[in-house]
Order: sequence, then structure tokens, then C-alpha cells
Amino acid sequence: MDKITVSVAGGSGYAGGELIRLLLSHPNVEIKQITSESYYGKLISKAHPNLRGFSNIKYSGLAELEECDVLFLCLSHAVSMKSIEKFKSIAPKLIDLSGDFRLQDKEEFEKWYKEPHANPDMLKEFVYGIPELHREEMKNAKYISSAGCNATTTILGLYPLFKNNLVDEDRTVVEVKVGSSEGGKKSSFATHHPERSGSLRSYKPTGHRHVAEMIQELSFGKDLKIHFSATTTDMIRGVLATSHVFLKEDLAEKDIWKLYRQAYGNEPFVRIIKEREGIYRYPEPKLLAGTNFCDVGFEKDPHSNRVVVISAIDNLMKGAAGQALQAFNIMHDIGETTGLEFPGLHPI
Amino acid sequence: MDKITVSVAGGSGYAGGELIRLLLSHPNVEIKQITSESYYGKLISKAHPNLRGFSNIKYSGLAELEECDVLFLCLSHAVSMKSIEKFKSIAPKLIDLSGDFRLQDKEEFEKWYKEPHANPDMLKEFVYGIPELHREEMKNAKYISSAGCNATTTILGLYPLFKNNLVDEDRTVVEVKVGSSEGGKKSSFATHHPERSGSLRSYKPTGHRHVAEMIQELSFGKDLKIHFSATTTDMIRGVLATSHVFLKEDLAEKDIWKLYRQAYGNEPFVRIIKEREGIYRYPEPKLLAGTNFCDVGFEKDPHSNRVVVISAIDNLMKGAAGQALQAFNIMHDIGETTGLEFPGLHPI
Amino acid sequence: MDKITVSVAGGSGYAGGELIRLLLSHPNVEIKQITSESYYGKLISKAHPNLRGFSNIKYSGLAELEECDVLFLCLSHAVSMKSIEKFKSIAPKLIDLSGDFRLQDKEEFEKWYKEPHANPDMLKEFVYGIPELHREEMKNAKYISSAGCNATTTILGLYPLFKNNLVDEDRTVVEVKVGSSEGGKKSSFATHHPERSGSLRSYKPTGHRHVAEMIQELSFGKDLKIHFSATTTDMIRGVLATSHVFLKEDLAEKDIWKLYRQAYGNEPFVRIIKEREGIYRYPEPKLLAGTNFCDVGFEKDPHSNRVVVISAIDNLMKGAAGQALQAFNIMHDIGETTGLEFPGLHPI
Amino acid sequence: MDKITVSVAGGSGYAGGELIRLLLSHPNVEIKQITSESYYGKLISKAHPNLRGFSNIKYSGLAELEECDVLFLCLSHAVSMKSIEKFKSIAPKLIDLSGDFRLQDKEEFEKWYKEPHANPDMLKEFVYGIPELHREEMKNAKYISSAGCNATTTILGLYPLFKNNLVDEDRTVVEVKVGSSEGGKKSSFATHHPERSGSLRSYKPTGHRHVAEMIQELSFGKDLKIHFSATTTDMIRGVLATSHVFLKEDLAEKDIWKLYRQAYGNEPFVRIIKEREGIYRYPEPKLLAGTNFCDVGFEKDPHSNRVVVISAIDNLMKGAAGQALQAFNIMHDIGETTGLEFPGLHPI
Repeated sequence: MDKITVSVAGGSGYAGGELIRLLLSHPNVEIKQITSESYYGKLISKAHPNLRGFSNIKYSGLAELEECDVLFLCLSHAVSMKSIEKFKSIAPKLIDLSGDFRLQDKEEFEKWYKEPHANPDMLKEFVYGIPELHREEMKNAKYISSAGCNATTTILGLYPLFKNNLVDEDRTVVEVKVGSSEGGKKSSFATHHPERSGSLRSYKPTGHRHVAEMIQELSFGKDLKIHFSATTTDMIRGVLATSHVFLKEDLAEKDIWKLYRQAYGNEPFVRIIKEREGIYRYPEPKLLAGTNFCDVGFEKDPHSNRVVVISAIDNLMKGAAGQALQAFNIMHDIGETTGLEFPGLHPI
Repeated sequence: MDKITVSVAGGSGYAGGELIRLLLSHPNVEIKQITSESYYGKLISKAHPNLRGFSNIKYSGLAELEECDVLFLCLSHAVSMKSIEKFKSIAPKLIDLSGDFRLQDKEEFEKWYKEPHANPDMLKEFVYGIPELHREEMKNAKYISSAGCNATTTILGLYPLFKNNLVDEDRTVVEVKVGSSEGGKKSSFATHHPERSGSLRSYKPTGHRHVAEMIQELSFGKDLKIHFSATTTDMIRGVLATSHVFLKEDLAEKDIWKLYRQAYGNEPFVRIIKEREGIYRYPEPKLLAGTNFCDVGFEKDPHSNRVVVISAIDNLMKGAAGQALQAFNIMHDIGETTGLEFPGLHPI
Repeated sequence: MDKITVSVAGGSGYAGGELIRLLLSHPNVEIKQITSESYYGKLISKAHPNLRGFSNIKYSGLAELEECDVLFLCLSHAVSMKSIEKFKSIAPKLIDLSGDFRLQDKEEFEKWYKEPHANPDMLKEFVYGIPELHREEMKNAKYISSAGCNATTTILGLYPLFKNNLVDEDRTVVEVKVGSSEGGKKSSFATHHPERSGSLRSYKPTGHRHVAEMIQELSFGKDLKIHFSATTTDMIRGVLATSHVFLKEDLAEKDIWKLYRQAYGNEPFVRIIKEREGIYRYPEPKLLAGTNFCDVGFEKDPHSNRVVVISAIDNLMKGAAGQALQAFNIMHDIGETTGLEFPGLHPI
Repeated sequence: MDKITVSVAGGSGYAGGELIRLLLSHPNVEIKQITSESYYGKLISKAHPNLRGFSNIKYSGLAELEECDVLFLCLSHAVSMKSIEKFKSIAPKLIDLSGDFRLQDKEEFEKWYKEPHANPDMLKEFVYGIPELHREEMKNAKYISSAGCNATTTILGLYPLFKNNLVDEDRTVVEVKVGSSEGGKKSSFATHHPERSGSLRSYKPTGHRHVAEMIQELSFGKDLKIHFSATTTDMIRGVLATSHVFLKEDLAEKDIWKLYRQAYGNEPFVRIIKEREGIYRYPEPKLLAGTNFCDVGFEKDPHSNRVVVISAIDNLMKGAAGQALQAFNIMHDIGETTGLEFPGLHPI
């Protein structure tokens, strides 16, 4: 089989770097170009020191992109939506890692992003990038919008319960704890080590944009509310979502088990983690660094109808580059786990 | 004024060590004895290396305790309640840092601790140890039961809203993020550095004992539910509670402000933290290491009737030794902040 | 080609776990048995939660080991040397990760380990396990003793200078900074998170056993002294060695470059890291987590004849399991990097 | 006694903030003004959130400084030396925390700072700010230059050995491990949390400026060399110096003990830490956060004439603000420990 030629627009940031790492060892891929304006002309290992010795590719400019089979877009907010026509002319297939095309509905975009969408007609042409929910659509998709990291963690944690219409739509409270790489590669006083190290900081108690994705994917026609807050931690990679949902009618833990097994029993990248003993009884993000897993667990409150769902990912992998590559594999009918086999480290 | 003679039963653990640190510099206190069976006969700095050079006191045995004015109990679970008669014969005033006498109601104790109480008749003789709620009772109290750390953080965060009957009693969701010193000084595989460092671990998604204290202090005669989960973090000291409450009727942020100011405007150890800019807009536990503050902030969700309340303490201080000393000061009509003036460090 | 059957004796610790992770994805390997007495009968993922879903192998007992092509020994100190005859009867090739057979000389062993060797006649039958120094011997070796992690880091950093007889033999000072996984999986008060997290602790200012390996490999017949100290840090994985050597005669930086290039230019797992700008100008262990690299850099002091050599590894990989697998590949004439291709993560 | 009026020039950085924290609780001090250009007009707690509720002082501009008894200078490099005449007109006593006046010799300044000194005639009017070495001179000093943090740690560790002429002058190797607050409050890519957290980074293998201070204070007329390297760690506060010195003639550990006891037995802020058992056998910076201690310990290598000296401080305290206040107390014949009584926290 001929290799698939891919280019990466915006390859000096964290998600871009992670994607390059994966693409370099993907047996079906030939990387054609990687762009960065700030590292223009330099080796990609200047931006990604872990890749020293793995590639001699140098950064191109965005304006120099040539035709290829698939173009990954790892650009800053709003660049994709403004230049989407140009990118369509470069490659027949686009995978966008930004938030620009995640929402199908123009009004929702404007409500959460507080700005008009530059190409609203394109919104419905993108498949929302969580394979566990949209695998069939992806097989023939041209355009995929990779899901937000907090949204991915929450949605995969809650999907089996909402899909089966078991949850009170108004009461769900979700709290994510996130690592510092979520904020990207640009330094600021907020990320200055003496200020950020050891911190537990409420950075978005209300109004987080990823809520719109959760509602889009979990509402199933209902009027759903997700009461969401986000706290940053001292982690670098990782998202841990603790979701509190209230069942419409009582279910035993073993019934909930069945629903999760039904939903994810054959999924290569979702593991149900719920053990009786040991210290890793529930999902934990540090075990997932570098992997494409979303680990999901839960506990039923014996004193109420609350179910606490715990889900975890590596935000740069299942929350960005890994999930994008998973979608790529599906689009091209390649084994879905190709290039995503890394099991993660322990201890770490 | 004559110094008040105090002894510490159980002075080799973390809360005991913190208490000793405070007592050593308290101008009205003379420490008489400090007990530890495992460090018996050794200098207290063997257990608490920060106190090297600050004291020549050596550990006594519990059986050797002599009469004193105030006895602090920093013992393992169930020791206080089993030996309370003995401790009463040693000192007319007792301040117990364990969970044994926090609940006023015997049935509640048995429900949450899953064992019978060894001295249920004594339960109502203890004042629950949060001064901001029980200052008047403390002034003449003989026995004080210092509040749980997670309970203190949550209760102080939510008190102004619940006291004013503004909150839907069935919907409150509280998530605390805690440091590793909460688990005490005994090592285990769960606290082994390679396993615990960098972790974000759901250790008590449901069923945490401190919930009973929250209900006791916040229900005001209503049938209150607190849907509570606890997650451990890589911090050593600190608790951050993120509490999601739903208002019965809508309130503007400035009205909520007024309630918090009314409740805490004159409190020496509660600060309302809510700023428009900067990175420390909300309470953050790392700033509180070594201090007796509970910092409290909140954000009203503009899209719903949810208020997110953020509160933080140092679990060994406001959550244990510091709050115990604050109560001690109140009991003896000493300036409430005496020995508790440390402002905390930044950066840290 | 038929798969090579391998078993792992002592597969529940950190080095054993890392080795299993590597073996599971090695295309030429079939794992036959993995032993653990404490996890006997349980899934290997009980000890290594990162391997959930990757294998259904359950732990066997050491006494149950069956014949195989290669037996890896990841046992506690002194077990290998006491049972070496038994292990020889199980497999024609042994790779021992303990310190038992690292020293060729019985007297040296007794001097540094302060006990007699249980099988001194076997000492010279083992090849010392750093491939960059002993590749040719490994090709036909039956028994390999994997090198110590601190020794590997230091030796690879200094080898080009000592081999070329450029260094004053009496003056070398080496300081390693190590992660907590070096101490193994057993918890203790020293590794209790509140005590260990954030610490920088001199744990072996003098007398570290790995010095004997450094002298063995770097002395080239001279009377060499290595003045060595070790400090533990808050890292979990990683060793950083800062070695201060004093040149017998002055050399320019570009001459030193040449020596390192000559020594390591074709080595797949040694990278020379020395850049003029950026923040990763020198080797840094966090970039190496999960990889088999030893990164080496240096700086010549412009005011003296000192060269500061900086070298870094992942102690569980190039310092244990990874280097053992590299030796395995060489022994079997398999591509040396097989199963060791992971480039590491950034950021991490 | 009348209060001493003090002002702080440059009070928004880390050292300035620490100094303000100490001055606010000093019983003999009245703070007059604190300057910051970037926080001009704002409350000091905007820069130092730990001080919320402790003061209503707002920042003044440098140009607005009025006369006071003592002016502390916490300004950027080179500001003090350029404006020293102006500062002398504001206050009769100056305590400078920058590096501008640490070296007595103009040539040495130019050699290490690689620029001419703006006011070389003033260099000899400053007393070098380590009280343990210069207490008598401080008593009548008008101008004090607070010592560098790495220099303080190293000098206090080595002083008893060098003062007694016991050390080979050419062979000393010193390695300091430092926290991120040493680099100050300005963020950069090097301090960006995902890049800096978890790092162990050689930032100055050779050529560190503080070496000049060490030579000045430890040479006692000899031609001394200090072979120095610095590594940054994941700590925020703290310096750990591991110094390897080689004795001219052999000494037993108990003789070395005597020398340290002789030098520091009466010092309020130097503790000799050397224990036979336990995990805190040697100095450790994390125990010193917020304190003014320099803890010093050592181990004699039984196989050579090397002594490994381990010394630790909090760089913002004994390495900056605390030591400056200690000098202030000495200058004014106030009890030397006034305002510096905090014993530090454990665990932390």
C-alpha cells in the first residue's frame, strides 16, 4: 500500500508536537511538511527535544504548504475557520484540532465563543471527532474536528448513562482537574513555575467553552444542563473528570456495569477501571501519559441516587493528537490502534 | 498572668507536631508534657525536624500524664472516646482533635463510622470546634472537639448561604481536593512516593465521614443532602473545596457578597477572596501553608442558579492544630489570633 | 524466525514491570512465565496497572519456572548469586538485573557489598551489561549482568575521556541526582509522600556501591578514584549525573566534541546534547522517561582545566530493563533498537 | 524605643515581598514606603497575595521616596550601583539585596559580571552581608550588601574548614541545587510550568557569578579555586549545596565536629545537622521554607581525604530577605532573631 502523505499546519505547539511524534512512527504515513512561523527553517527537534535524532524535517511556512492527502490543522483559535477554504484546496481531507468546527450549530458557537463564526456553512460538514460516538460517520468523512480534551473526558465518562436516558437532565455537576499543558506552549505569569507549581487553582468555575460540546453530544434531543467547573493542578499532562449524575430511577452497580460494558466492551481505547482493592481502583491520569486511552470508572452512592463517574485521559493524546490519529486510521481503514500502541509507564 | 499549663497526648504525628510548633511560641502557654509511645524518651525534634533547636522536651508516655490546665488529644481514632474518663481526670479542659466527639448524635456516629460509640453520653458535652459558628459556646466550654479538615473547609464555604436558607437542600455537590498529609504519618503503598507523587486519585467518591459534620452544621433543621467526593492530589498540605450549590431564588453576585461580608466581615481567620484580575482570583491552598486562614470565594453561574463556592485551608492548621489553638484562645479569653499570626509564604 | 521464549523471575517490581512492558511488544519474543511470590496467581496488571488490557498472563511462583531460551532475573539483592546454578538449569542464557554479578572481582564485591559472594567463580562468566562498552563480548555471551543505573549514567558520560587517558585519575567528583523509583517498590517512612515529596536529600554522600562499577569500567589499568555522592530528588524516574573531571592537559571544546563523536557517533542510544541556545541545552532526565537513551553533554570551564560532563537516563530503562533488552537484542542478533523505539514525551 | 522608619525600594519581587512580610511583623519597625513601578498605586497584596489583610500600604514610585532611617534596596541588577548617590541622600543606612556591592574589588566585579562597575569607589564601603563572618563590622556599618543565596549556602558550609586552613585550595568542587524562585518573578519559556516542572536542569555548569563571593570570603589570602556548578530543580524555594573538599591532612569526623561547633555553636541561625538515623540525617531545604536558618552537615569519606559538606537554606530568607533583616537587627543592636523566629513547617 502506498503511504498516505500528510502535512501538519502548526507543528511547534504541544498538540502538534505530539502528533508529529505519532506520525513519525506510523507505518502508513509519509510526512510531507510541518509548518511553524516561529521556528521557520529549524529542525523540528528544536521545538520538540524528545524528537532529537528521529527526524531531519525542518519547519516550512504556512504559505508554503503543498498538496497532500491529509492536512492536520494544529493552529491557534480562529485560524482554521478563517482559512478553511485555502486548507481545503491543499488536501481533500482535513483533521482540525482547534475548537473552530466542533459545534454544529452557529448560534451555539457564538454563545460560547462570544464571536461570530467565520465560516458557519462549513460547521455541519465536520464530523465531531470522538470515534466511540461517531465511528461510522468518520469512515467516509472528509473533515473531522477533533474534540476538546475536557469534553472528551466528560463525554466518554457519561455517554452510556445519557444515551440510555437514565440521568436527570438538570442536575449533572462535572468537575475537571487539568494539567498545565492544556494551556499551550506560551508562557505567562500564570504559568511561571514559582506561581504555578504546587497550585490548585479554580480557573473556570463557570462558563467553560467545552460545555457546549458536552451538551451537543449528550443531550439526545433533551434540554440538558451540565454544571461544569475546571481546576488546574500541578500535573503537566492529564485530565481527570469527576462527574456527579443523578439517576432518574435507581440502578444497582452491576446494572451500571452492564451499560458500560455494552457501550465500551469492544472499544480499543476505553477501559473500564473499577477494582475492589489496591490503590488504582479508579482511573488516574498519570498512568495514561503518552497513551490514547480514556479510562472510565464509577461508584454508586449507597445513600442516594447519585453516580460518581470518574474518567481520565492524557489531554495531548486522547484529548488531542492521539484521538486525531485514531480518526485518521478510521478514515483510511487502517487498524484503529496503529501508531497508538504505547501502553503508558508505571511508575511515572 | 500565670501561664496556662498544657499537655499534648499523641504528639508525634502531623497534627500533634503542628500543635507543638504553635504552642512553643504561644506567650501564654507552658507546655508540660508531650506523649508518644513510638518516640518515647526521645527529643520532640526527632519526630519534628523543623523544631530542632526550639525545645528540649522529650516524649513522655500516655500513662505518665500529670495534671494540667488543658489537655490536647491528638490520638488515633477511637482512643479518645475509649479513655475519655481518664483524660477528664487529668485536665479540666480537653480539646480533642480526633473525630470521636464531632457528632452530637449517637446514631449519626454509628451510621458514618460504622461502629458503636464508646461514650455516647459525652457527645453532647463537646462543643463542635469551628469558632466562626460556635464562638459563644466556646467561651465557657470545657470540652471542644476540633472539626474535620474537609468539613471545616466546606462548612465555612457554605455557611452564609445555608444559614440564610437560600440553597436547594437536595442538590449540593461538593468536591474536595486534598493533600497527602491528611492521611497522617503512617506510610503505606498508597503513599509510596513513586505511586503517589503526581497522582490525582479518587479516594472517596462517596461515603466520606466528614459529610456527617457538614449536615450537622449546615442543615438548620432541614433534611439536607451533601453529595460529596474527595480526590487526593500531589499537595502535601491543603484542602480545596469546590462546592456547587443551587439557589432557591436568583441572587446577584453583589447580594451574595453582602451575605459573606455579613458573616465574615469581622472574622480574623476568614478572608473573602474574589478578584477581577490576576492569577490569585480565588482561594488557593498553597498560599495558606502554615496559616490559620480559611479563604472563601465564589462565582455565580450566569447561565443558571448555580453558585460555585471555592474555599481553602491548610488541613494541619485551620483543619486541625490551628483551629484547636484558636478555640483554646477563645476559651481563655486570650486574643484570638495569638500564636496564629503567620501570614503564609509566597511564592511557595 | 521462531520466537525466542523468555521468562522473567521477579516480575512484580519496577524494573520487572518495565521489562514486561517492553517484552510484550517485542516482535521476536514469546513470554513464557513471569514470577512473583507476593502477586502469585494474579494478573500482571495487578502489579503494573499500565498494562491493563495488554496481557492475560498471571504470575507464577519462582519454583514453577520451566525451561526457556532466556531467563531475566529481576530479583532482590543476593537471590541471583545464591540460586545461580538453578537458574542456569532453566535457561541457557541469563540476563541478571541485580548487582550480584556486576563486579568481576570477588574482593571488590566484598569491599563494597560488605558480604562474601555466594558464587564467586561465576563472576567472570558474566559480561558487564553496558553495550556501548561490551558489544562484541555480548554477541556470544551466555550471561549478562545489567549495569547499575547510577553507574551507567556516569560511565557513559565519562567513557570517552577516560578511554583516551585524558583525565587526572585522582580528582574526579561525580554527583548524581536520582528519582524515587531507584529505591524500588517497597514503601517506607523515607518514601512516605509527605516526607519525600519536594525533598532534596543527601542519601549517600560517600560509599555508594555503584562506584565499584565505575572504577572497574573506567580505570583502564590505572589507580582511579571516583569521589561520588548521591542526592534523591522529587523525580520518580531519572538519573542526572554531573561529573567534574580535570584534564591532564588542556583541550578545546571542539576537541572534546570530536572524542564524544568518535565514541558515540554510531551509537543508537547515546545522544550528544550540547546546544548554544534554548532551554534544553544539556541532557535532562525528564525528557527520557520511557526511553532507552543516555543523553550526554559537557561544558569546558574557561577558567580551569575542569570539564563538567552532564549525562542523563531513565533509571528503569537505560538503567535497568531497557539496557537489558538492548543486550538481549545484541545476543540474538536482532536489530539493536527493536522494542526500544519509544522517543519519549514532551512536555512531561 | 522609637520605631525605626524603613522603606523598601523595589518591593514587588520575590525578595522584596519576603522582606515586607518580615518587616510587617517586626516590633521595632515602621514601614514608610514601598516602591514598585509596575504595581504603582496598588495594594502590596496585589503583588504578594499572602499579605492580604495584613497591610493597607500601597506602592509608591521610586522617585517619590522620602527620607527614612533605613532603605532596603531590592532592585534589578545595576540599578543600585547607578543610583547609589541618590539612595544615600534618602537614608543614612542602606541594605542592598542586589549583587552590585558584594565584591570588594573592582577587577573581580568586572571579571565576573562582564561590565564596568558604575560606582567602584563605593565598593569598599559596603560590609559583605553574612553576619556569621562579619558581625562586628556590621554593628557600626552604614552600608550592607546582602550576600548571594548560593554564595551564602556554600560559604557557611565551608567556612570552618577554610578558616582553619585545612583544605586543598585547588580541588574544591561545589554543586548547588536550586529552586525556581531564585530566577525571580519574571516569567519566560524556561520557567513555563510544562517545561520547568519536574525538571533537573544544568543551568550554569561553569562561570556562575556567586563564585567570586565564595573566593572573596573563603580564600584568606590564598589562591583559592572553587569548581562550581548549578542545577535547577522542581523546588520553588531552597538551595542545597553539596561541597566536596579535600583535606590537606587527615581528620577524624569528631575533629571536624569540633571545628563546626566552635564556629557555629553560638550562632542563632546555623544548625549543625548530622544524625545517625532517621530520614533527616543531613540538611534539607524543604524544612527551611520561611526560616532564616542555614543548616550544615558533613560526612567524611572513609576511603579518601574527601569531606562532603551539605548545607541548605531558603534562598528568599537566609539567601536574601531574612539575612538582610538579621543584619538590620545587628546594625541596630536589636535581638538578632527579632522577626525571624519562624521555625519552619513539617511536613511541607
